[in-house]
Amino acid sequence: MTSHLFSPDVQQALDLVGIFVFALSGGLLAVRKNLDIFGIAVLAEVTALGGGVFRDLIIGAVPPAAFQNMGYFLTPLLASLVVIFLHPEVQRINGTIQVLDAAGLGLFCVAGTVKAHDYGLGAVADIALGMITAAGGGVARDVLVNELPSLLRWDRALYAVPALVGSGIVAVLISVQHLTAVTGTAAALVAFTLRMLALRYDWRAPRAWHRGSSSALGESGD
Amino acid sequence: MTSHLFSPDVQQALDLVGIFVFALSGGLLAVRKNLDIFGIAVLAEVTALGGGVFRDLIIGAVPPAAFQNMGYFLTPLLASLVVIFLHPEVQRINGTIQVLDAAGLGLFCVAGTVKAHDYGLGAVADIALGMITAAGGGVARDVLVNELPSLLRWDRALYAVPALVGSGIVAVLISVQHLTAVTGTAAALVAFTLRMLALRYDWRAPRAWHRGSSSALGESGD
Amino acid sequence: MTSHLFSPDVQQALDLVGIFVFALSGGLLAVRKNLDIFGIAVLAEVTALGGGVFRDLIIGAVPPAAFQNMGYFLTPLLASLVVIFLHPEVQRINGTIQVLDAAGLGLFCVAGTVKAHDYGLGAVADIALGMITAAGGGVARDVLVNELPSLLRWDRALYAVPALVGSGIVAVLISVQHLTAVTGTAAALVAFTLRMLALRYDWRAPRAWHRGSSSALGESGD
Repeated sequence: MTSHLFSPDVQQALDLVGIFVFALSGGLLAVRKNLDIFGIAVLAEVTALGGGVFRDLIIGAVPPAAFQNMGYFLTPLLASLVVIFLHPEVQRINGTIQVLDAAGLGLFCVAGTVKAHDYGLGAVADIALGMITAAGGGVARDVLVNELPSLLRWDRALYAVPALVGSGIVAVLISVQHLTAVTGTAAALVAFTLRMLALRYDWRAPRAWHRGSSSALGESGD
Repeated sequence: MTSHLFSPDVQQALDLVGIFVFALSGGLLAVRKNLDIFGIAVLAEVTALGGGVFRDLIIGAVPPAAFQNMGYFLTPLLASLVVIFLHPEVQRINGTIQVLDAAGLGLFCVAGTVKAHDYGLGAVADIALGMITAAGGGVARDVLVNELPSLLRWDRALYAVPALVGSGIVAVLISVQHLTAVTGTAAALVAFTLRMLALRYDWRAPRAWHRGSSSALGESGD
Repeated sequence: MTSHLFSPDVQQALDLVGIFVFALSGGLLAVRKNLDIFGIAVLAEVTALGGGVFRDLIIGAVPPAAFQNMGYFLTPLLASLVVIFLHPEVQRINGTIQVLDAAGLGLFCVAGTVKAHDYGLGAVADIALGMITAAGGGVARDVLVNELPSLLRWDRALYAVPALVGSGIVAVLISVQHLTAVTGTAAALVAFTLRMLALRYDWRAPRAWHRGSSSALGESGD
């Protein structure tokens, strides 16, 4: 049982921080989309918990943690209240939120990879589920409000690559039996740092090769 | 085992009425979206069964009831036939359909909360799953046809609140061990009545606080 | 255990061909949508594996085959590489791809129906899950990139009907206990042939009856 890299209390605290920040990002998008307070709460819940719920369904961990641990479920409601009453202030500290979101990305890709391994999946599936844990909620958030998922867009800074690297490091650590609280934290820090660098320098993934004329630039559809 | 508030036959009959009405709403949207008859059938199935299927996946009740009970699966096809041949007439009785939809909302939030409790989930998750049972199919319907889910929109009459109240009453009844056919029906009636009042007086949920200028009005995106 | 109509090696080879072709169609849509290479990979994975993953969640076969069989997961990545480097060439052989996609449709509706039956579901659910296996990935692909699922659109050649016929034949073969490698292949061929004819002669499903004026033509929404 490697899933407790940390003591349960520490793990829970880290999870709640990640959930809270992801929920803020969902709630802020709901405000921009002019949704009502229930729409804000739904989008906060989906963004914060969607990736983990999908992972748990895939690995057969039902009911998913989000439906068993009251703290996981109530934290996005708390974030919704913050957004409802303080969204101008929250938006003003958007830089801080991006830092925290990057931290959530790092934590969740590590935690997701470890949990998938605990349920007996292979290394490739572990990595995929680590990425899904980190990025799935954001995709569900965007689909719900009819936006092309920012994860898929070439004109957004890298998000999948940091998660892939973090999950990949954990999978390697597991296979060489060197996953500990220290090395797991290091993997999360690598993912976090990559994401911060991607934001800072606007690193983007390439598109398909030989895309032809640059007129494609700026078109989000065809 | 509290899930049989009613005799199985009565429960099944109530379920089928709710499924039929939800399927009508899905089928009518498909007609407005100019879909073909298979699109109508798919949207009817998804609207009627989507919430319950999601709940069953979450609580680990697989295969979901919709895939075990032939009546659950075939009823939306019957509703599709009605829509295909009689959609102008069905639209003309839209008021009646909204009444029946409100009844479905009441029945499903109660049934979903009870089923989640039967599978051992806690009160908060029971309430969440009651709401998902009642409203999840409509969200899936809207996502499939690229519409912002009406559940999330501030310019639509309250839908989540009646479901929340109905599910909440059931959770309280369970905790004080007073859930019976009579009190369960009363909870469904409360949800039904709230929804009817919301429709009648166009009750809406507020948006985020201090939204600033009223120019936001009418913008559905940014 | 009827799920092995063929020897495991033959079944695996057929599955991989179907997965590869479905992944190409997802990757090509991603290129048209101007997504980056990770978007291409995600859309390829979702298109190729989405239907089967949903079926496996419904029947309780967790973790789904796509997360247990490394070949299933890696094949869409291979298809993504092909799309990234050769998409103009791939688009040029679009006719060939449509043939292969029709073959995938035939294979997947048969395999999905058989697997659902193996897990103890009834005939109606078997047919539904056969269709979901064949068509679910394409629906998920379209929803992810904000397009009305082509499965639902009246202005696209029949897709659901060939899958329905193929799945239906298999369900009948199972009930009369005549499902063999030969008859199963025949069912897949019937679905394949119907799909090819639908493409060739642009067969479409009708819309709701008495749609009124033909001005509806060409409107995809209202």
